[in-house]
Amino acid sequence: MSIITLTTDFGLKDHFVGALKGKILSENPSAQIVDISHNIDLFNVTEASYIINAAYSSFPKGTVHLIGVDSERTIDTSHIAMQWNDHYFICADNGILSILTQKIKPQKIAEINIHDRLPESSTDIDVFVTVANHLAKGGVLSVVGKEISTLKTISTIKAIVASDFNSIKGYIVYIDHFGNCVTNISKKQFEEVGKNRPFEIFYEKNRVKLDKKTIKKIHKSYSDFIVNDTFKLKNYEGEKLALFNESGFLEICIYKSNPNTVGSAKSLLGLNYYDEITIQFS
Amino acid sequence: MSIITLTTDFGLKDHFVGALKGKILSENPSAQIVDISHNIDLFNVTEASYIINAAYSSFPKGTVHLIGVDSERTIDTSHIAMQWNDHYFICADNGILSILTQKIKPQKIAEINIHDRLPESSTDIDVFVTVANHLAKGGVLSVVGKEISTLKTISTIKAIVASDFNSIKGYIVYIDHFGNCVTNISKKQFEEVGKNRPFEIFYEKNRVKLDKKTIKKIHKSYSDFIVNDTFKLKNYEGEKLALFNESGFLEICIYKSNPNTVGSAKSLLGLNYYDEITIQFS
Amino acid sequence: MSIITLTTDFGLKDHFVGALKGKILSENPSAQIVDISHNIDLFNVTEASYIINAAYSSFPKGTVHLIGVDSERTIDTSHIAMQWNDHYFICADNGILSILTQKIKPQKIAEINIHDRLPESSTDIDVFVTVANHLAKGGVLSVVGKEISTLKTISTIKAIVASDFNSIKGYIVYIDHFGNCVTNISKKQFEEVGKNRPFEIFYEKNRVKLDKKTIKKIHKSYSDFIVNDTFKLKNYEGEKLALFNESGFLEICIYKSNPNTVGSAKSLLGLNYYDEITIQFS
Repeated sequence: MSIITLTTDFGLKDHFVGALKGKILSENPSAQIVDISHNIDLFNVTEASYIINAAYSSFPKGTVHLIGVDSERTIDTSHIAMQWNDHYFICADNGILSILTQKIKPQKIAEINIHDRLPESSTDIDVFVTVANHLAKGGVLSVVGKEISTLKTISTIKAIVASDFNSIKGYIVYIDHFGNCVTNISKKQFEEVGKNRPFEIFYEKNRVKLDKKTIKKIHKSYSDFIVNDTFKLKNYEGEKLALFNESGFLEICIYKSNPNTVGSAKSLLGLNYYDEITIQFS
Repeated sequence: MSIITLTTDFGLKDHFVGALKGKILSENPSAQIVDISHNIDLFNVTEASYIINAAYSSFPKGTVHLIGVDSERTIDTSHIAMQWNDHYFICADNGILSILTQKIKPQKIAEINIHDRLPESSTDIDVFVTVANHLAKGGVLSVVGKEISTLKTISTIKAIVASDFNSIKGYIVYIDHFGNCVTNISKKQFEEVGKNRPFEIFYEKNRVKLDKKTIKKIHKSYSDFIVNDTFKLKNYEGEKLALFNESGFLEICIYKSNPNTVGSAKSLLGLNYYDEITIQFS
Repeated sequence: MSIITLTTDFGLKDHFVGALKGKILSENPSAQIVDISHNIDLFNVTEASYIINAAYSSFPKGTVHLIGVDSERTIDTSHIAMQWNDHYFICADNGILSILTQKIKPQKIAEINIHDRLPESSTDIDVFVTVANHLAKGGVLSVVGKEISTLKTISTIKAIVASDFNSIKGYIVYIDHFGNCVTNISKKQFEEVGKNRPFEIFYEKNRVKLDKKTIKKIHKSYSDFIVNDTFKLKNYEGEKLALFNESGFLEICIYKSNPNTVGSAKSLLGLNYYDEITIQFS
């Protein structure tokens, strides 16, 4: 029996998440359910894409990831199930899996076609639950849909390498609970393009690139500062820094940030979603 | 062993929910606990009533629903356990079960009387935990209380049919995470009174009924719009609509609403809790 | 197999909590994980200290408590695991365990030293997960670190008894979801110093002690009011009161408070974190 993870924009006040779990357990009493997030911004496929990519690798192979974000089946959007890197993902075909499929080719994709086999009152989520339980019990994809070869992608999600290979231009794609601003520039891309050259990280404020506020080092950890007898670690609280986070993406942060009190990269540096971040190699 | 669900107004910052689960598991190590909501508005029995009714049917028969909202046992309020539609509900007798008992007659109600059998320092929640574990293990109601025949009800909870049977007047009783405004008008009531007649749904703003802003159709789903080559589904984003939600209640919504960005039925239509909604049949 | 509880400042929007659970379950598929809180104020060791002390006693002996608040291992701060009162606690040595160790002497403390045995990319949380799984499976502390005898403490956490034993001066150390203001004055301290003498509880507003607003009684429960035919319980809604909460600390509350609507001790009495509370015995 595999783990089933849940990533939705349902929020935690309504009964939706509890009801979803009740439906899974009704069919599958020994299911092991893990919440990834239920606070994805509503209908925000880009955010869901970031979160599921950041989360999946902490789960064992065979895990089934149910993603209930913008999940209504419409004339434009089908329901899909994907086997990828030995994990399973169930969602609407709205681009949520873009970050994953850019990295590794899917093993198999099925367009779910079991809707007519379920009771008439069944919802989109009921379909996902049926597929999730089927896969968690070891069922195969071909039973729940017909194989397809491509998925919709989100076009804005990739960082761009300049034609002279001297810079990478990315964007802030996620701002976390600590106010840390995560870009779509990956460590892999940074290393391939940079080849150990010195660099400066420029960031914008209100779409104006600020030359004086560059970052010239990438930290190994949040507390990777030079400490000595006169300059202690706590003297660095409030300092800006850049590092590659656990998911392998460049992050602009403030050491010991707190959006509610002392401020964060978002509030102190004036950064926001879709702000441009450029790494200039020399 | 049955599932135990939790619905409380404890919030998710404090230790209360974790401690509640620890108490359940201390007595009942294999308990399967599912959160329905811990963000019920404080002491809001009406909201708890709506949520528990919306959630229960996603769980298998035999599930035990523990409701920790306004649960203090006082001179006015006893603790109760109810067997209803083969589910169990444990709460204070403050009207929370009104929506359920209006639909289906309880199988059995017990006024819990085990308080003296527990340690003196036991809290209201400790009592609920003991009863929940007893019932989840298959115990009978009569062991934990004396049978009673009636419960307190909330009087404002029902939609009213006009004496000429030409209209139904209801209220907004719940506003969900998407800003959708849920009324207390049920699909059953709509069909019984309407008998397939044409209708208009009027809603108020600041207690003034707005004639120009009626809705004349009930959607089958959020995306149930007429789509063609020139008018795509995404052109309808921001449109208002009405539908019966999964719980069978009329809901006023905005297609692809988001209270934090583009707005919702609450913000865009100016709707709020207890605003009047009238369906006029012709 | 023991329960593993989680107390963090990770919030519930990001993938961090889900990923943490995925890591635990990857190594330990039958782990029973219970969330205590993921909404601790960021890096707030005092708040974490309060919450973990309030929560632990609801869990069975042998439970492993993983605390991910300010958990980075730095030049100043090591990772520790503590056996205390037959529970286990894993955190950074930053004072989080102060309230516990002031009450009862630890059975054993280990400074975790397994970092070099884990893959190079391992994070602080990976270390905690490895230790938590080891302890939950019944492993001993000596395997994961070298024994030490003392921990860092937070100095401001204790209430102070006056030299004439006629008063106790404490502070508000936590404000809960209901807006109740919890002090660091314990029931034990109150009884030992007070010896059943009459008393007044003074509280400040904006650092000015308000003589007219004292409380002269400690309630047994939130609804412990004198009720008769003309003065019902609901007439007391909005009244201020003091009681010892489940964790044994003095709390200043409003009966049926709601920070979002009618107000709470925080909003109505103007109380806030670190405001002084004095009990004067006569």
